[in-house]
Amino acid sequence: MRAIVLSIGSELVSGLRLDTHSADIAREVSALGLEVLRHETVDDDAAAIAAAFSRAAAEADVIVATGGLGPTLDDCTRDGLAAAMGQPLEIIPDALAHLEAWAKARGRTVSESNRRQAFMPRGCRALPNPVGTACGIGCRIGRTEVFCMPGVPGEMALMLSDIVLPSLRAAAPGRVTRVRTLRTFGLPESTLGEHLSDLMAPRRSPHVGTAVHGGLIDVHIYATGTPAEVDALLSADAAVIRERLGSQVFAEGHESLEEVVAGLLLRRGATVAVAESCTGGLVAARLVSVPGISACLVEGVVAYSNESKIRTLGVPPELIERYGAVSEEVVRAMAEGIRTRTGADYGLADSGVAGPEGGTPAKPVGTVCLALADAAGTISSREILTGDRAHVRERATNFLLDMLRLRLV
Amino acid sequence: MRAIVLSIGSELVSGLRLDTHSADIAREVSALGLEVLRHETVDDDAAAIAAAFSRAAAEADVIVATGGLGPTLDDCTRDGLAAAMGQPLEIIPDALAHLEAWAKARGRTVSESNRRQAFMPRGCRALPNPVGTACGIGCRIGRTEVFCMPGVPGEMALMLSDIVLPSLRAAAPGRVTRVRTLRTFGLPESTLGEHLSDLMAPRRSPHVGTAVHGGLIDVHIYATGTPAEVDALLSADAAVIRERLGSQVFAEGHESLEEVVAGLLLRRGATVAVAESCTGGLVAARLVSVPGISACLVEGVVAYSNESKIRTLGVPPELIERYGAVSEEVVRAMAEGIRTRTGADYGLADSGVAGPEGGTPAKPVGTVCLALADAAGTISSREILTGDRAHVRERATNFLLDMLRLRLV
Repeated sequence: MRAIVLSIGSELVSGLRLDTHSADIAREVSALGLEVLRHETVDDDAAAIAAAFSRAAAEADVIVATGGLGPTLDDCTRDGLAAAMGQPLEIIPDALAHLEAWAKARGRTVSESNRRQAFMPRGCRALPNPVGTACGIGCRIGRTEVFCMPGVPGEMALMLSDIVLPSLRAAAPGRVTRVRTLRTFGLPESTLGEHLSDLMAPRRSPHVGTAVHGGLIDVHIYATGTPAEVDALLSADAAVIRERLGSQVFAEGHESLEEVVAGLLLRRGATVAVAESCTGGLVAARLVSVPGISACLVEGVVAYSNESKIRTLGVPPELIERYGAVSEEVVRAMAEGIRTRTGADYGLADSGVAGPEGGTPAKPVGTVCLALADAAGTISSREILTGDRAHVRERATNFLLDMLRLRLV
Repeated sequence: MRAIVLSIGSELVSGLRLDTHSADIAREVSALGLEVLRHETVDDDAAAIAAAFSRAAAEADVIVATGGLGPTLDDCTRDGLAAAMGQPLEIIPDALAHLEAWAKARGRTVSESNRRQAFMPRGCRALPNPVGTACGIGCRIGRTEVFCMPGVPGEMALMLSDIVLPSLRAAAPGRVTRVRTLRTFGLPESTLGEHLSDLMAPRRSPHVGTAVHGGLIDVHIYATGTPAEVDALLSADAAVIRERLGSQVFAEGHESLEEVVAGLLLRRGATVAVAESCTGGLVAARLVSVPGISACLVEGVVAYSNESKIRTLGVPPELIERYGAVSEEVVRAMAEGIRTRTGADYGLADSGVAGPEGGTPAKPVGTVCLALADAAGTISSREILTGDRAHVRERATNFLLDMLRLRLV
């Protein structure tokens, strides 16, 4: 089965916003064994949308589209699709019922502009959207199956995983392409590539590739064949990679570093408290992204000022004067301070020069100090991280979470 | 003049890598006054590339392509372009001279695989690449002007700015397309669309459209004409929109909500402290993303547990027992508590049911309570936010930052 991915939005065509949906959709659709022929990105213009649907329907068995389903007048995916199908727009009862339920739950009535979202080309079915007003659209153009999803990221992700992918999975025959992902932290990409160079040779099957996301390196293994063949190939490669990379591999699949850390804490019934300076709340926020974390996360303190480090974490002022706020001495005192203050099993702390200003020859921008205190004592490290302010903070967050992970495994 | 942007690469079509070049190119090309019709992303496959070039040449005056010019066997933009032009591949002397000079400067000879890069369709000119082995390709398919650039980011950026854009600028005199963006928070997209429905009418010029990102709604105004005409059109529309939306507009262009809030705090010499429950550090982390925030952000506390709300923020336990942790009563006490504790001018607090578990009929998932305490007293609100856990937390963060913004303006 051949698929074309369609993104609709003037802000995408003009380059004002980066289209990330097409890549996400293509990855998921490829994993089901479909061949993605291409992506197209077109304007919020009914004629352009109609032409894109017609062009894609002439070549592909499946079209997966996003965007242009909102309530405002510039949202005209409905109109373009109707033109490509040669069908009039009409109220689709399921879509209207969804809007009415949505409004009722909020003590409102359906506004005139929201009502636009109940109109779809005749013969379409409304795809449920549990988290937004825009239902998706399912239909056919000739023999080509079409799915239209809203462009709002959370709504798209849910509709893709819950409706579009299961429907495509049911339609895809015998052979599959599957990807297995080992998530790693700690090695530079080039070093990791050297460890895996034989597996990453061009035209080897399975295909092994690396991709950097948020300072973490994912190793993807792609295999095609019958489900049983594919699983055997993937397992064999995964075992080799795990053996070579050891504890650098922190998860498989989509599990995040914070989910792994939260899982380890929960299994041990252990608690943690976090004292953050340069990460400014990111470590706590990453942990809080995991449902159920309240059992483990006692408290976080964003001690961005020296005043806060001294008053709330009990860091001796003379330590800051002597070594500076960005020093292993100070982060050790912060980690011990938050642990003492809260009674948590583990105290974590960081302090760093995130930039763009504040660097010195001794402590250049990117210098980050990290510490972990527990019943066994306190460990600390100093890293020089590269990238802009956001990158340095994100990487520092990964380093601190990984410090706790390595202590817990 | 109408342009189509073409990206070539299997890693892009499969979604393994995100295509950022198309957006960058579209932005630059639009700024010259060209109308970008669409982007296409196609595989490293000569037939698919040929079809894409032919399709684009039938509609556009200009094609700007990237990728597939490397030395390895999977790079076949040259072959696809040759098929679309109906010309054979032959050695282009300028491209060969470039390769020879490149190799000589490194004390090598031109390898067989690099030699592939000197072959181009007959009639093409080599576009110089000062930082890589791959020359670009300039040619025509019928009357359509074609530019092919390497996909390596640094090489693409330089060739775009130094060769492609100057050439297009010379061909498109006088007229430009510019966009102005007003960033808003507080109105649902449908309501905002009703306020602006006359401006958003299809085929109106300037074109006005909305896009939702991270719970904020951007209003984009696009105008085309001479620079003076465009500036007048954009200013007129921006003034109308600002008048209709009032304080809902928080910024122009790329400025973020946290940058606006930080700017207001800095100008007033005011300080803030944040007590976060459901946002779990996101509010502090957003503020810390702004360089120089240390002058304003005194402290953040992630009081995700009741224990922490009571011990660190001084919330009376009976308030939590009586009203629950997610209540306006408790967030008011949290905001006052963090303000008293730190001496900050403004105390912010939130508590909510981010989900997926924890909802009740009285407090469904998405219920978020927010409070701001300052010298004038304490204000609070209760919102029902939609979306998954990440969305609810992101939107709650926006609400709390906006509460402070509205207090400061």
